[in-house]
Amino acid sequence: MTTKIDVNEAAELLLAKDNILILCHKNPDGDTLGSAAALCCVLRLLGKTAAVACHNTIPAKYEYLNIPVYNDEFEVEYVVSVDVAGVNLLGETMAHYAHKVDLCIDHHESNNGYSNYLCLKEDYPAAAQLMYEVILAMGCEITPHVADCLYTGLITDTGCFKYSSTTPLTHVVGARLMELGAQHTMLVEKFFMSKTAKAVKLEKFMLNNLEYYFDDRCALLALTRDVILDIKPEPTDIDGLSAMPRNFEGVDVSILIRPLREEGAYKLSIRTGETVSANEIAAALGGGGHVRAAGCEVIGSLDSVKKAILKEVENILCR
Amino acid sequence: MTTKIDVNEAAELLLAKDNILILCHKNPDGDTLGSAAALCCVLRLLGKTAAVACHNTIPAKYEYLNIPVYNDEFEVEYVVSVDVAGVNLLGETMAHYAHKVDLCIDHHESNNGYSNYLCLKEDYPAAAQLMYEVILAMGCEITPHVADCLYTGLITDTGCFKYSSTTPLTHVVGARLMELGAQHTMLVEKFFMSKTAKAVKLEKFMLNNLEYYFDDRCALLALTRDVILDIKPEPTDIDGLSAMPRNFEGVDVSILIRPLREEGAYKLSIRTGETVSANEIAAALGGGGHVRAAGCEVIGSLDSVKKAILKEVENILCR
Repeated sequence: MTTKIDVNEAAELLLAKDNILILCHKNPDGDTLGSAAALCCVLRLLGKTAAVACHNTIPAKYEYLNIPVYNDEFEVEYVVSVDVAGVNLLGETMAHYAHKVDLCIDHHESNNGYSNYLCLKEDYPAAAQLMYEVILAMGCEITPHVADCLYTGLITDTGCFKYSSTTPLTHVVGARLMELGAQHTMLVEKFFMSKTAKAVKLEKFMLNNLEYYFDDRCALLALTRDVILDIKPEPTDIDGLSAMPRNFEGVDVSILIRPLREEGAYKLSIRTGETVSANEIAAALGGGGHVRAAGCEVIGSLDSVKKAILKEVENILCR
Repeated sequence: MTTKIDVNEAAELLLAKDNILILCHKNPDGDTLGSAAALCCVLRLLGKTAAVACHNTIPAKYEYLNIPVYNDEFEVEYVVSVDVAGVNLLGETMAHYAHKVDLCIDHHESNNGYSNYLCLKEDYPAAAQLMYEVILAMGCEITPHVADCLYTGLITDTGCFKYSSTTPLTHVVGARLMELGAQHTMLVEKFFMSKTAKAVKLEKFMLNNLEYYFDDRCALLALTRDVILDIKPEPTDIDGLSAMPRNFEGVDVSILIRPLREEGAYKLSIRTGETVSANEIAAALGGGGHVRAAGCEVIGSLDSVKKAILKEVENILCR
């Protein structure tokens, strides 16, 4: 049973504790890393002992966050998870903390209450927007570096203020973080105005191999094992790819098929426009997700997997 | 000689006048149209007679701005230009207003002071940010529709808060406009999350035909007359294309060559990263522009034009 607490109560808990370990979710993104880095920096400025742990190595892209990775250098007395909706998202190497999380600071509606205390704002587009409030409630100064960390979370989880989760408050926090020294231009260039050579290759493959169905209302891309071995994309490159055709004029459903590690099994990512439920399509094949972004895993040959998903798409588009 | 005035003086002038014509710049974008639409709406709500004029037909994309286009239905007593840096940008059919502009509301550093009065904020990323202040200074209510108009200008001229011209104040105005009813999701989808079929075709052509030079530090794309006749892109599609390869990893200089109406003449768009001056490259061929975005027109065969620009790029990259 988790106890829901507000920003002030979370701040009080953090101020009272020491030897704090901050956990990020696996396959970490800018929001979990930026929020954790900001909290860790603030705790250390208060003279406390604190460090960050994550199942994965922190990607080189986030080096500027200067995250102090936990290395058994102190005995952990308090565990805080940041932007982690469920214990399964901690990853294998962090699984032993699953029942030891004292405080969770999160913005996911799907948070399943695994922590002792939970500070949750499900209407915030980023955990960083909540962490900003927690840090203010702690009475701590937001240094330019902390502002960079929080601005990272804010822009990466909102697509730079594009997603519909963006609210007036998001802009207000963005303004304040810029005033406090967040390097807007550097961060936006890094996350939104640069494309790796692999991402460019993948996009070229997509445009040359996209298949259209049902009066071009459905766009489907199959990434074969060969293509992945050839291009060697990062997982984030593939994630970015799945949303692209959904933005093409006339496309209501976009499907990305990628092979799973086991032969004869595929992961499907489904993205839809306003008129179609991605969740409904995914659910028909045993998956799930959100209204406009969902996924499922299907066993079979590539041809049979394609047929199966196209049948479900047809059912929904042509009913 | 123009007289520079502040926001309050501009507001006073507008409140004192009637039968007002608002001029946009030619090849209108979201900022000139959104700012003009907002001002016109506010003036009409005050019971004044006002309309908007532009050299070009207003693109269908901007239909929701409900711009009342001037149709000789009243005798113009006061002319206001919005987001127009120089009279040459009014376009041929508006050229007769060149020496009759009473008030110019603008944010271009290059504004050459052609109007009787000039209200200029060159550190604002969009004319809409200035128009927001003018309307507030007029003591007028910002209705949800006016908020939509202004938010349009704000997001289109900042790449949705991405460009380095974005300031804390831009976010503050963005927040306020959302609170006042601006339809964030609808507007962002329209301008940043949808791609026309022509734009997709053009991007595919680009990825398949991009040429790389000087250890891949220079990317060059030549659009031939045949390709343009085949795809029939909008001018904005081609404009969007020129900036893309600049964001590819390792690319310092991106060149887009397109044929001009006259045979044997080409327009070159040059986009550069932080280390190279686009203006310097363009100037070497008789053109000009900004540090990171410049252009020139060159006469010759496509081959000779390519050779000429690559020689200038080589001079700068390899010096």
